[in-house]
This record gives sequence, C-alpha cells and structure tokens, in this order.
Amino acid sequence: MEGDESWMQLAIEEARCGVGLTSPNPAVGAVIVKDGLLLGKGWHHKAGLPHAEREAIAAVTATYGVQALRGSTIYVTLEPCSSHGKTPPCTQGILDTGISRVVYGAEDPNPQHRGVAKSILEAAGVDVCSEVLASACEDLIRGFAKVQRTGLPWVILKSALSLDGRVTRPPGEGQWLTSPESRERVQRIRFECDAIITGGRTFRVDNPSLTLRSPSLPPKDQPWRMVMTRGKASDLPSKHKMFTDTFQSRTLVHEGGNPQDALRQLADLGCQTVLLEAGGRLVSSFLREFLVDELFVFYAPMLTGGPDLGFEAGLGSLELSDQRFERIGDDVLLRAKVVS
Amino acid sequence: MEGDESWMQLAIEEARCGVGLTSPNPAVGAVIVKDGLLLGKGWHHKAGLPHAEREAIAAVTATYGVQALRGSTIYVTLEPCSSHGKTPPCTQGILDTGISRVVYGAEDPNPQHRGVAKSILEAAGVDVCSEVLASACEDLIRGFAKVQRTGLPWVILKSALSLDGRVTRPPGEGQWLTSPESRERVQRIRFECDAIITGGRTFRVDNPSLTLRSPSLPPKDQPWRMVMTRGKASDLPSKHKMFTDTFQSRTLVHEGGNPQDALRQLADLGCQTVLLEAGGRLVSSFLREFLVDELFVFYAPMLTGGPDLGFEAGLGSLELSDQRFERIGDDVLLRAKVVS
Repeated sequence: MEGDESWMQLAIEEARCGVGLTSPNPAVGAVIVKDGLLLGKGWHHKAGLPHAEREAIAAVTATYGVQALRGSTIYVTLEPCSSHGKTPPCTQGILDTGISRVVYGAEDPNPQHRGVAKSILEAAGVDVCSEVLASACEDLIRGFAKVQRTGLPWVILKSALSLDGRVTRPPGEGQWLTSPESRERVQRIRFECDAIITGGRTFRVDNPSLTLRSPSLPPKDQPWRMVMTRGKASDLPSKHKMFTDTFQSRTLVHEGGNPQDALRQLADLGCQTVLLEAGGRLVSSFLREFLVDELFVFYAPMLTGGPDLGFEAGLGSLELSDQRFERIGDDVLLRAKVVS
Repeated sequence: MEGDESWMQLAIEEARCGVGLTSPNPAVGAVIVKDGLLLGKGWHHKAGLPHAEREAIAAVTATYGVQALRGSTIYVTLEPCSSHGKTPPCTQGILDTGISRVVYGAEDPNPQHRGVAKSILEAAGVDVCSEVLASACEDLIRGFAKVQRTGLPWVILKSALSLDGRVTRPPGEGQWLTSPESRERVQRIRFECDAIITGGRTFRVDNPSLTLRSPSLPPKDQPWRMVMTRGKASDLPSKHKMFTDTFQSRTLVHEGGNPQDALRQLADLGCQTVLLEAGGRLVSSFLREFLVDELFVFYAPMLTGGPDLGFEAGLGSLELSDQRFERIGDDVLLRAKVVS
C-alpha cells in the first residue's frame, strides 16, 4: 500500500535505537498508524523487556487509550513472535488490541517460526503484508539471523590502513594512522557489537583497552573482550589493561587459536555480532576459514610503506558486495559484506 | 564583484576542453561578458593556435561584431600572456578591443612574467582583478606550473589495488581487479597526460599497450610511452606490442632506471603531465625521491592476498592532501595530492 515504505522506514529508525543493546534478541522497531496518522512507536530495549510491538501498543494506549488501536495498522521490522519466550507472544498481543493490519519487514530467520505469525494473524482476520523494505530490515538483525542459521555470530572485521595497505607507520612516527573522527566512529561500531576479539600479539605489543569510552554513547555494558592466543592464558602479560582495569570481568582468553571455537564460545555467551580488531595474521586466519561477514576498513590519507600489512598474502580472493564508502574526517571508511 | 566566480567557473569549464591537448602550453579558458550577458567563450586548443582570450574575442566578433567588445569584461583562467611566443601577446589583443575589465584566476607561474599583464593592462586604464577561483584555476595548469618551477613534469601515480593493497589476484584467477568503468576512467586519465611510464618488469610480464583506445575520447596523438629498465633497451622483448604496434614511434626506452633522468627526458619533449603505471618497485623508487605529485588509486571490492603489493615496504610516510573519492562501477577511486 502507498505509504507502507515510509512507515516501515520510521520503524527501522526505531529499531536502530536498540542495535547493540538487545542480544541475544534482535533489534526491532514498530510504529502504529491509523488514517494516515502516527499514533505511537516503540523499540525493543533489552532481552527480558517488552518487544517492540508491545512498546508501541503501550505508547498508543498511554496517549489515546486502548480503543484507539482498533482498526489501526502496525509496522514491525521483524515478523512478530508467535511463541512464548521471556514474554508472551506478540501475535496474541496484537489480536487483543483489534489492530486490523500488520505489515512487517524481515521474516523470522528461524525456519520453525517463519510464517507462523502470518498464519495465526490471517486466521484471525487480520490483513498481513510481509517483506516491506525486507533487505534493510534483515540488515538490522544480521547477527541474530546468522546465529539462528549457523550457530556462529556475525563477524565484522575492522581495519585501519594506509592507502598502501599498512597497519603501521614506520618506527618513530607515532601510533595513529586514522583521524580522531574515525576513532570515534570505531567507538560506535564497538557499541553495536557484543564482543571484540584481538590477538595475543596485539595484546602484548599494543596493550589495548578495547572499551567503550566515548561520552556520546548511551550507557551499555562493556562488550566482551577476547584475546586469542596460540599459547596459554598464563603466558600473557598479567598487568596489561584488559586484565587489570574496571572491566576485567569482561575479558576472556581463548587458548589454541582456533577461530571457529572462539566464535562458538562467544555465541554460547549470547553474542550475535563480534568485532575483530587484530593484526594481519589472526585476521587472515578468520578470512581463510570464511568466518568474516563484513568489513569496515578505514583508509588514512597516507602511504607509509610500514612493515606490517593489514592482510597476509596467500588468502585467495574474497569477493565483496554492498560496498559503501563515506568520508570521515580525513579518512575514507569503506564498508562491504563478504560474498559467502 | 558579484557573479565573478560564476563566470570564472564557466571559463574553467572551457579550459577543461583543452586539458591533455595543449602541452607544452597550459590549458586555458576564457569567457566575455557585458551587462550580465555572455557574449562569447573560447579555449586554447593546441600550442601554436590562438590563446583562449583570442578564441573568445574571435567568437564575440563573429557573432556581434568587434564593437560589442568595447566596455566588456573578459574572464580568463590564467593571467594573460604579455610576451611574444608563437602568437602575439594577449595583453595587446585585449587592449585593441576596448575590453575594459580583465578578471583572471591563476597567476603566471613563471616569476619573470607574473604580474606583468596586470601592470600593462592597468597602465592602459583597464580594471584588473586577479586570483578569482585561483585554486581551481591553478589545478588546471598544475603540470605547466611544475615544469616552470622545477623543470620536471607533474607525476600522477595510477594504481589499481584490492582492499588489502595487492595489485594482483592469486594465480589462475584472471587478470583484472577493477571494473570496466574504472578502466574507461583510466583512459580519460591517460588522455589528460602527455606520457605514460611503465617498468621493464611490467613490460615483460604484461606486454601492455598503454594506448588511448576509448571511442568516447576526442582525437589526440597517443601519449609518449616510456619503458624504464635498469638494463639495456636491446634486452627487452622486441616483439612486444609497444615496439610493434601502429604507435611504435611513440615508444621510448629509458635505460639506467633513474626516475629524475627519465622525467627530465620527458620534460625536454614538452611533457607536462606524466602518468606512472608501474609495479611496486618502480613506483616506490619514484615515491622515495618525492617525484610523485598526485595519486589516483582505484580500489576494487575484494581481498586477494595476492603476492604483489602496490607499494613496497620501507617508503617512509608520505602525507596526502585534497583527497577526494568517488564510486566508479563497483570500485572506489581515491584521488589525492602528495604534500611536498
């Protein structure tokens, strides 16, 4: 119907408020509309709290009373849930209100649930329309969907390179390649992830914090920080920040250096989206096993000829899709998905 | 004055028609305006043919008669010439017409000529305004200005890289990294240059043509093609395209592998802008001697882990400025100038 996409766009913007906060649940947004007017909106804040549909219904009820919902349309970025989880099923919540039309974006990635809400709602006489702005809505839940499909989290590889593909400046030239604006953007990327993986070498050499520390971010638990080492945890420098700072309980060590095992461990902790911030060797071992789903590469405007490359030789080609680029400070950020 | 910048922008667009065609002269454009109306425009087509000012004056004279010029304003991208070259000085040509105001963009890069036109014209009662959109106008003549200042041409390094800084795909995966659109763009970049330099290794391995061959380009003599070899010319494969095709007279071999000497040889042939399309080793030797002025790097949306890097290690950092990026087909083109 005319206008469906604009309302769904608004629901997507609602859902975005929850990205990074909802694991192991997906980020979802909803808006409720009647006679071309917006009655209310809502987003899922956190696992255990109400789903987006119920947030939107509550908002409308608070403002206009429950009877305003009768005959309205709800736009949801994800197919409503039809089974009991921590909260009762949203399909029932919708039916209870008299909402007469349901428009959703992404289908439930779990094949056992997919289409069930549609059947339940249609059987009750509700008009249902699916896959509106489906691809943007699927993007919101790409981590959730990957875990559902494969048991492994969505992996984002973040790299900061000079234009000649180096991760370092020559010795003595200072630490940073990229601009403060790019480093602020990395904070935002970390915020949207549930865990950050780095390698033993980076841990030893750079002694990174891998924390959320930007004052512009909403409050959130620190993401898990995982150090992958081929040796033993006890061989890592015990005084380094990640073992001693306020968030040391959020630090994990994965021994053995097997990327699949590390990711499975994080999935078991409820992680859907994992950020890989590591040196060329570890990064390349993830790439070789086709475990990277998305790239964020910041290019700094310099040639360094530095000794360390962001990616090792001998990978074999990986094709990318959906590439987007934007200027950030003096840098260029290139985003792309790995074609699987 | 109000409107000066818009008219100068039009003069710049005129000048652009000549970029790549005018060496050893600069590309220049001019428009003539009276009472807020465009009377005529012109651009310098080729060394030996009339300068842009005279082209514009001739256009106005042909349409409106010579008396229309009296009291008009001429916008020129470069300070008018004041000395006899292959054609008489434009300052005199302007005075002969009764043009009462001259607005120019870039100053003459030759310190012996700079400001002379201004003095001559002002002494004759003409109102002169300089440095309008100076930086865009200087960009049009950056090759000409570099030769004037240093005796060496402006060097553009063109590179096509995977996102991990490789110039090749792994063996057996095919030749091209970048899209057809990017390769068409390379044709345009070649068109704007007077010579293309490549290395002996690229010559041997790739057997390139390094020709202008896009049907969408205006007619032009092929740029010089120079092979730089550390050995002897007679050791290069004599059957390769550049030695045997229709344009073999445009092929040069530079022995010894000294970048400065090679560039000086091209400057002596009247080259102002030289394109470097070579492998990591030759490219890096130019960079190490600070002989590269500008980069055009095409990034293809893939990681290859190929064996060959676009830039060698151990360069030392080079800072870049004026970086611009644009999407071309599936690739990203990053342009930047080397901070000297």
